[in-house]
Amino acid sequence: MILIQDTTLRDGEQGIGVSFTAEDRLKIIDALAALGVSSVETGYFDPSLKSLNSALLKSPHISLLTAFIGCCRVGEKADENPVLSALAESGYRRAAIFGKTSVSQVRDVLRCSNEENLRIIGDTVSFLVKSGLHVSFDAEHFFDGFAEDPDYSLKVIKTAHDAGAAEIILCDTGGGTLPEQIEEGVRAAIDALPDALIGIHCHNDSGLAVACSAAAVKAGAGTVQGTISGIGERCGNANLNTLIPLLQLKYGFDCLPPENLRLLTPTARYINEIANRRFDESEPFVGGFAFRHKAGTHIDATVKAPGSFEHIDPADVGNSSGIVISSLSGRAAVAAKASALTGTAVDKSDARVIEATKKIKELESAGYVFDAADASLSLVIMEAFGERRRYFDIVRYQVMINEGSESGSVILDPEIIAQSSCDSEIYRYNNACSAIVKVRVGDVYSVTADEGNGPVNAFDLALRKALTQFYPQIAEMRLTDYKVRVLDSSTATACAVRVLVESSDGKSSFRTVGVSPDVVDASSRAISDSIEFFLMNREKER
Amino acid sequence: MILIQDTTLRDGEQGIGVSFTAEDRLKIIDALAALGVSSVETGYFDPSLKSLNSALLKSPHISLLTAFIGCCRVGEKADENPVLSALAESGYRRAAIFGKTSVSQVRDVLRCSNEENLRIIGDTVSFLVKSGLHVSFDAEHFFDGFAEDPDYSLKVIKTAHDAGAAEIILCDTGGGTLPEQIEEGVRAAIDALPDALIGIHCHNDSGLAVACSAAAVKAGAGTVQGTISGIGERCGNANLNTLIPLLQLKYGFDCLPPENLRLLTPTARYINEIANRRFDESEPFVGGFAFRHKAGTHIDATVKAPGSFEHIDPADVGNSSGIVISSLSGRAAVAAKASALTGTAVDKSDARVIEATKKIKELESAGYVFDAADASLSLVIMEAFGERRRYFDIVRYQVMINEGSESGSVILDPEIIAQSSCDSEIYRYNNACSAIVKVRVGDVYSVTADEGNGPVNAFDLALRKALTQFYPQIAEMRLTDYKVRVLDSSTATACAVRVLVESSDGKSSFRTVGVSPDVVDASSRAISDSIEFFLMNREKER
Repeated sequence: MILIQDTTLRDGEQGIGVSFTAEDRLKIIDALAALGVSSVETGYFDPSLKSLNSALLKSPHISLLTAFIGCCRVGEKADENPVLSALAESGYRRAAIFGKTSVSQVRDVLRCSNEENLRIIGDTVSFLVKSGLHVSFDAEHFFDGFAEDPDYSLKVIKTAHDAGAAEIILCDTGGGTLPEQIEEGVRAAIDALPDALIGIHCHNDSGLAVACSAAAVKAGAGTVQGTISGIGERCGNANLNTLIPLLQLKYGFDCLPPENLRLLTPTARYINEIANRRFDESEPFVGGFAFRHKAGTHIDATVKAPGSFEHIDPADVGNSSGIVISSLSGRAAVAAKASALTGTAVDKSDARVIEATKKIKELESAGYVFDAADASLSLVIMEAFGERRRYFDIVRYQVMINEGSESGSVILDPEIIAQSSCDSEIYRYNNACSAIVKVRVGDVYSVTADEGNGPVNAFDLALRKALTQFYPQIAEMRLTDYKVRVLDSSTATACAVRVLVESSDGKSSFRTVGVSPDVVDASSRAISDSIEFFLMNREKER
Repeated sequence: MILIQDTTLRDGEQGIGVSFTAEDRLKIIDALAALGVSSVETGYFDPSLKSLNSALLKSPHISLLTAFIGCCRVGEKADENPVLSALAESGYRRAAIFGKTSVSQVRDVLRCSNEENLRIIGDTVSFLVKSGLHVSFDAEHFFDGFAEDPDYSLKVIKTAHDAGAAEIILCDTGGGTLPEQIEEGVRAAIDALPDALIGIHCHNDSGLAVACSAAAVKAGAGTVQGTISGIGERCGNANLNTLIPLLQLKYGFDCLPPENLRLLTPTARYINEIANRRFDESEPFVGGFAFRHKAGTHIDATVKAPGSFEHIDPADVGNSSGIVISSLSGRAAVAAKASALTGTAVDKSDARVIEATKKIKELESAGYVFDAADASLSLVIMEAFGERRRYFDIVRYQVMINEGSESGSVILDPEIIAQSSCDSEIYRYNNACSAIVKVRVGDVYSVTADEGNGPVNAFDLALRKALTQFYPQIAEMRLTDYKVRVLDSSTATACAVRVLVESSDGKSSFRTVGVSPDVVDASSRAISDSIEFFLMNREKER
């Protein structure tokens, strides 16, 4: 059994643009505990963060939570260090202590003798062990230290082990070590401490964090550390989403129970969402593109011999396979999709397939992408087949944005407005946008208006209000994601934008797309498509 | 010397959301030729794409360009295949032929005998070699084939070699092979064909494309194929941006002249820009974050011992290092930045440093990110130091979006409007947005208006028009990039957005940020910051 330790909340948070609130941390801890990791580093221990600590200590998964902390200072005793003393009494049950293992780092950064470095490590580990904590020792820069002076780096980890550390984690802190060097270092540590549990912690600066972690496990490491999606400082940490299935499905090491491994894809997506991070769909194993085929020859092979281009069963990691329609995938793929939509066999030489394929190419050249907008694609194909029903037309709309006044006539103090450009506290948002939308359903016209936070929100609310009169079922549908992408950023604010909208009918979700130089117009296209697709599906169900 | 072969335009284009125009291809070819690759695959050869082929054949780098094509059909002779004949006479000098090496693929996908597969490969290679082309053979699924039936897969590559193929590229087409298996396959191929040039082509489905490619080179492969940023189908291809410096700087293989290696970072960014792809700043070696330090302890170590956290000299790959300011980097980093801005030494315990750090934390919690917005950060720090000058205030603005009518009073035919929601051809954009902006400079108020493509463009144009009266130098500044990010997508269109704006004064570029529920308001914050920062810098220069 290989123990999986997550450090998304600690080393992951060192990634640029990443930060977690207390509530984010609790949600992520719950998800990781359900996945079955053996430890969750929660962040640098700081006794002054009272509300965060008290929230974490109330977690039902307290036995997994690991507080991260450095050693006592040079010349100081561990029991005299106020932060270590606070940790000892805090209620945390696990601590990860980091310390230096490289002679040059001891000399240049810590600026003390090699002996003093051993003393502060031994004293810190021993103090926390005596206080009843499970202590793991993070041997910072171990592999660089091992290359400089193998004896000293091994002496450091022996000191931590002798002081009672339950685990010794060998860290490639700078991310520059190669897999063969990792293997050598791990073997040397195991030889030096045959009864210790040795772990590995790799960074991706050489693009090898996963390969190095796997090399360490093959050499005998029993614990691997990493982060979800490899989030972390510089080039990130070892990506657990890749490493866990690689070790378990391809190398045959047990990391998680097989039923938990199937939670990997949804857990990875969920944690990226909490981290407010764009999920990389090309991530190995868990990405939305990992088992999707675009090239015509690959699609052909996949139809003839399922699995030709799939190295594992996607279901084992909770993912699924599929084909992607684009101008590269060709008419066979469009015909397959049309057969599914219309419920009748459609040949790829059918004139309507040729027309739909041509339309898809035209729209793609205008900036549309259909691989991420299955519902809009269905509408384009239905249209070519003469089966698209127009449930409504948007005849006209107008959106007004008034900023700097609450009612459009009262002008606020210019000082306050000026201030508000960088001050979130005094910034008050008064639904300054309003939209008027005129729709036509059959022969009936309807004009409605609404206000919202921003022009797109105002437009969306007004449109739904107008359409709900005709189609009350729209109330069961909701927008779940909204993304804006600027297409040609070389002309800056005058460029076209692509809006992707994800909607849910409560049972499944579907995606639509709109492209226009105007963000509101692009949104209106994607939103209308989503409503139309929803209404079409509801009609089919009846 | 290891030959670097690029397949960004062929295998890269199989990536979801990736497509290249003829002009894109020519720009990318020029950039790759300057970098010093030995071959550029330009895409599937299609004689019907006359204008593309004629543009490519006029390239000054024609000797590098490689047309990609399959074998003749089962039962057909190569010289009877119209596409192969067209290629032979096209003027291309290099071809990459792909063929099957796995017995199960021959049986299930190609559906012919093992002998017929050998025949079509030998016949195709030999036909193109006799026509005067440099031919490389892409041994599709080689490693899967080698695992199934080593003799047959070796017989396939021997057939291609004997028919005159100058290079044999072993492909891990499904991306499921482990580094140790790659090594074994490469060694077997070299043993079987000791006088052949053996190459490697890996996919990243197991997160190991770079590690597997490096393993192949260590086992004796002389050619590596990959793509810029690993763009490609499913999880992508081997990332040349990582692989080239890994092989050259860490393993000591010559891939590019050292002066060319320094072009790697700008070339990678340029090609991502042409591909209209968001560059991943955490990419090893070439990413903007690859040598930037965020954690306080790392910054401290980097100041004391430069290079502590850097595994190579960033300049070797044309990159640079730096520190990132955020709430995690702490007061020392803010003090360093303040010293640089004010030109006087500032201590980290200075009350103004404490205030600026507090402000940064507040804004970060509201969704601001300063690591990607250096100019907005400078303004926040200058403000805390009482040195921020208000060049102008935006007193009020109003933006009107009229869609579905050209003048606001003429209503177009609803049929046309309805059609336009998915038809780019009849879609006409008439600068339907107009903005009124009122600014104050000192005691003078000015109201101006302008029209634009979309609300942000209209606002931007009106604001510049208003301010140019007071500050004519604004004409020298332009917006170079504009990005929108939705912050909390769980509430869909009602969520806050973060706008990042990049501007240039002709000599250098600078980045600003704005956050608001309204995309126009967020943009107005980022745009005002950029103008203010520009004016401040111009004043300093005088």
